[in-house]
Amino acid sequence: MNFGRHISGQFNVELESIRTHVLTMGGLVEQQLSFAMQALHKEDVELARKVVRDDHKVNAMEVSIDEACTRIIAKRQPTAKDLRLIMAIIKTITDLERIGDVATRMAYVAIESPSSKERQFQISLEPLCRQAIAMLHQALDAFARMDVESAAEVHKLDDKIDAEYEAVIRQLMTYMMEDPKNIPHILQVMWSARAIERVGDRCQNICEYIIYFVKGKDVRHLGDQSIDDALR
Amino acid sequence: MNFGRHISGQFNVELESIRTHVLTMGGLVEQQLSFAMQALHKEDVELARKVVRDDHKVNAMEVSIDEACTRIIAKRQPTAKDLRLIMAIIKTITDLERIGDVATRMAYVAIESPSSKERQFQISLEPLCRQAIAMLHQALDAFARMDVESAAEVHKLDDKIDAEYEAVIRQLMTYMMEDPKNIPHILQVMWSARAIERVGDRCQNICEYIIYFVKGKDVRHLGDQSIDDALR
Repeated sequence: MNFGRHISGQFNVELESIRTHVLTMGGLVEQQLSFAMQALHKEDVELARKVVRDDHKVNAMEVSIDEACTRIIAKRQPTAKDLRLIMAIIKTITDLERIGDVATRMAYVAIESPSSKERQFQISLEPLCRQAIAMLHQALDAFARMDVESAAEVHKLDDKIDAEYEAVIRQLMTYMMEDPKNIPHILQVMWSARAIERVGDRCQNICEYIIYFVKGKDVRHLGDQSIDDALR
Repeated sequence: MNFGRHISGQFNVELESIRTHVLTMGGLVEQQLSFAMQALHKEDVELARKVVRDDHKVNAMEVSIDEACTRIIAKRQPTAKDLRLIMAIIKTITDLERIGDVATRMAYVAIESPSSKERQFQISLEPLCRQAIAMLHQALDAFARMDVESAAEVHKLDDKIDAEYEAVIRQLMTYMMEDPKNIPHILQVMWSARAIERVGDRCQNICEYIIYFVKGKDVRHLGDQSIDDALR
């Protein structure tokens, strides 16, 4: 992907390298979420420990990509689309790092809950979690191809995640009322549900940065309809 | 504050203007949180509506400061400390905007809960909310003076917020178990508590950006002890 047909071929190489690092980071975060979900559902404490251990890798990638972006700004003095790419990357990695934190939080639940009851309720999160992982996967795919149409489509998936989240919370609330002694367990599960629901919001952010990069339009704080209008 | 003794006096003026805008945005966000808290406790639906109405101002400031930062990078090609200031600002306004969202969420609770019961539980959040507002105030103060020692001190306040949050959640959980029909009300209050607790984390982020700007060290993902070490 030749971003701006630079006279400096080296500049292109550097931009491409940063972009590759973002995708690697995204792949790792997606894997972390997926492993955390598996760890919960298969009661695999070893896998959960791996997720916790690997969180520092996600953090380190955020810091090093940030540094690379600052270095390239200072050295190459990018403007226009190049600069927008770097801005989009700086914001994207913040969201990816926070999604990584969600995976770690889920992994801690798998490690710290000796009660099979908590894990049993946690199973009810599986469809929500699968949706969030799929949305992240598609957002990263749109990022890899810098595809605004896909980004706008992925942006809309959050409505489904929100609906599933609401259904899960209602279900868990029923369990709470049926047997109040389960309240502490179920609350843990609700916190996880909330965290997973937020993954959808963060994926929306990533889609907004893609649109910002390609179209030069800041579509944050607008609804899906306005985004569609902006792309027309 | 002369950031880098630039040959261009105009560059200084531009940097100073952006910094002023960040402080204005910070002041507005602090006010939003404070109004949202008052609205809940005084059952002042009109004030809550004002908070919801004004959220777009916070969003618009985020977008316009972001634009100003991108423009100044393209035009002035900043390096070293100037560039770090701009990077710190870009990240700070993201956190400020999210704190603004917390205020709006609290305001919605004040508007949508006709039940005095929900509001009654909500009162238990007042000390937590006061602590979060105080921490935000101090973080913005450290930002205004770009004072790393203050930033490191403010960073530590999050432990107190976390402790207060844990106490609030335990208390609310007891209410839930005592009378399960209150569960839906109390859950609403717990979501608010969680959101307010996250304000503390976001204030910590702002403190980390101050240290990054002044010291050139990225102290994210480190604990308070490592931050103290980095400042020595």
